[in-house]
Amino acid sequence: MSNASNPEGFAVAVLGATGLVGQTMISVLEERNFPVRTLLPLAATSGGRTVRFRGADILVQQVQPDSFNGVDIALFSAGGAASLTYAQEAAARGCVVVDNSSAWRMDPSVPLVVSQVNPGALATHNGIIANPNCSTMQLAPLLKALSDAAGLQRVVVATYQAVSGAGAKSVTDLVQQRATLVSGGTPTSTIYPHAVISSPIPAIDVFLPDGSTKEETKVVNESRKILDLPNLRISATAVRVPVERSHSEAVHVELSRALSPDQARIAFAAMQGVTVVDDPASHSYPLAADAAGSDEIYVGRIRTDASVAHGLAFWVVSDNIRKGAATNAVEIAELLVSMNLVHGASHVA
Amino acid sequence: MSNASNPEGFAVAVLGATGLVGQTMISVLEERNFPVRTLLPLAATSGGRTVRFRGADILVQQVQPDSFNGVDIALFSAGGAASLTYAQEAAARGCVVVDNSSAWRMDPSVPLVVSQVNPGALATHNGIIANPNCSTMQLAPLLKALSDAAGLQRVVVATYQAVSGAGAKSVTDLVQQRATLVSGGTPTSTIYPHAVISSPIPAIDVFLPDGSTKEETKVVNESRKILDLPNLRISATAVRVPVERSHSEAVHVELSRALSPDQARIAFAAMQGVTVVDDPASHSYPLAADAAGSDEIYVGRIRTDASVAHGLAFWVVSDNIRKGAATNAVEIAELLVSMNLVHGASHVA
Repeated sequence: MSNASNPEGFAVAVLGATGLVGQTMISVLEERNFPVRTLLPLAATSGGRTVRFRGADILVQQVQPDSFNGVDIALFSAGGAASLTYAQEAAARGCVVVDNSSAWRMDPSVPLVVSQVNPGALATHNGIIANPNCSTMQLAPLLKALSDAAGLQRVVVATYQAVSGAGAKSVTDLVQQRATLVSGGTPTSTIYPHAVISSPIPAIDVFLPDGSTKEETKVVNESRKILDLPNLRISATAVRVPVERSHSEAVHVELSRALSPDQARIAFAAMQGVTVVDDPASHSYPLAADAAGSDEIYVGRIRTDASVAHGLAFWVVSDNIRKGAATNAVEIAELLVSMNLVHGASHVA
Repeated sequence: MSNASNPEGFAVAVLGATGLVGQTMISVLEERNFPVRTLLPLAATSGGRTVRFRGADILVQQVQPDSFNGVDIALFSAGGAASLTYAQEAAARGCVVVDNSSAWRMDPSVPLVVSQVNPGALATHNGIIANPNCSTMQLAPLLKALSDAAGLQRVVVATYQAVSGAGAKSVTDLVQQRATLVSGGTPTSTIYPHAVISSPIPAIDVFLPDGSTKEETKVVNESRKILDLPNLRISATAVRVPVERSHSEAVHVELSRALSPDQARIAFAAMQGVTVVDDPASHSYPLAADAAGSDEIYVGRIRTDASVAHGLAFWVVSDNIRKGAATNAVEIAELLVSMNLVHGASHVA
């Protein structure tokens, strides 16, 4: 390992280091001054690429099980197959894995953690911790605030998801579709059956036998696990829109007790990492472009939903690559350190 | 009036003839071979423009109250102010007005009609008939089908609305934003406070004191009136997305009685003007680009919403300028003729 800049810190690996989330993980580690002693960027196929960290170019290495010897913390964002192959290998070597794929999220032995919602769940980890799906991530702190303030009866969410949720190649695909449209051509996707530039696409991840998509099921199942509300009544429609960055969500909730929009604003604002942007008179409401590059979750359009007792509606926007993925993973790593839950593999290797 | 091509037909005026909806009204009159004896294109400021109808260029005339002398049917799409100024003037002259603005929709003496949902309401007209808002229009036939099949308890809808709903200038604005983005600039809107190209915008029409927008309130109030369900529990979040044509909607409903997705598909397909597109295995679901240029309402993603008893979710897409505005107005005119509800102003003038 190279770049040992903090002798008191931790050996940190990032698997999927050249991907959009992996690169952002590395940026966030640096931005937040995470105590990295050595950074080990890994990829399924390294190809001699480098990543930039603290002013140095670090060669990306091809992952293998022994890559994790001596690594304290590994942030995984290389897809479900890589996580299934390497997470247990890493954990067996004393490394704590924070995994951004869906591979381990619903495993009962694996904590699924949003940093400001259920950090206590980390205490029971067995070497693997799951980072929630982006569309679940930005919603969970708001649902937690409402659950604590007035009880949650039912949640209906419709998403407006940025193409970057499907990785850098999907951003390139949108950029190409947009250029084709501007030049008068007929845009097609090089990746998907339909071109998102001219149509919101109500199909993210694979379809399940009940007609829902896996993305929609993630919102349901992951929210229940994170909030520790296994019977929460929640449903979702997940939709891709022709926007590069930040997911937006229209949320209608039914609460157990009355909660005015003003009370909801107070409850939301009290949640760490949540910013209320809600002043229609000045055209202020959360917008994807404004959220891009930020670690905050923005909520606005907070109003009564009069169609149900104790109904509330709101609009939530967050950068899907940062809080929706990379930042929460680094926040989990910070919690692991502060809660003394890192095994210290680098000291026994 | 010019172009008297059908001596047995009707004198038809189109107010707002040079707008996106007005031009489409004229196209649809021609496409459907509506019995037009004379076409009178009107605009607030004519400026010497012409419109094309049955192979001829017809000069647009500047509207004034006496423009409607001898006109049998007038299709209005020139905004609420023009409708408030001229609809009663036209009606007083024996003309039947089909008004696409929001000016008259909630007037108890004015029928609000979706052609295949409540044509019978036309019988009571007093010279003015209201054409519903586009986001309401495409939803009403589906809600009617569900109401008849299993009873409606509650409806939650999130919209993904095309910019053309705000007129041709908004389409130009989006096209310019897109070109700016492609050329590496920072897009701004020349019309709105925010640029939709990079952010879904949860603000359509003006904000009301309760925090909802007028667009959201239209969905609520107009649906209740069209369906004759004055107490229907329905709420909406209305959002503009960076797409030119066709509105999409994510809908979650609670029914009174059980209705399987297959039964819902049958009920939807039986509704005139509705096409079910729902085969995830072949990546088939309604898409805005596919609906553009069509008069059909497309519904898919039909599935159980397990978060509530008798819950159902679906995705509905239609061309907001055609069925959402122009086509329904012409369909109303067709119904007026077939129901013998045109006064025949042109014969008494």
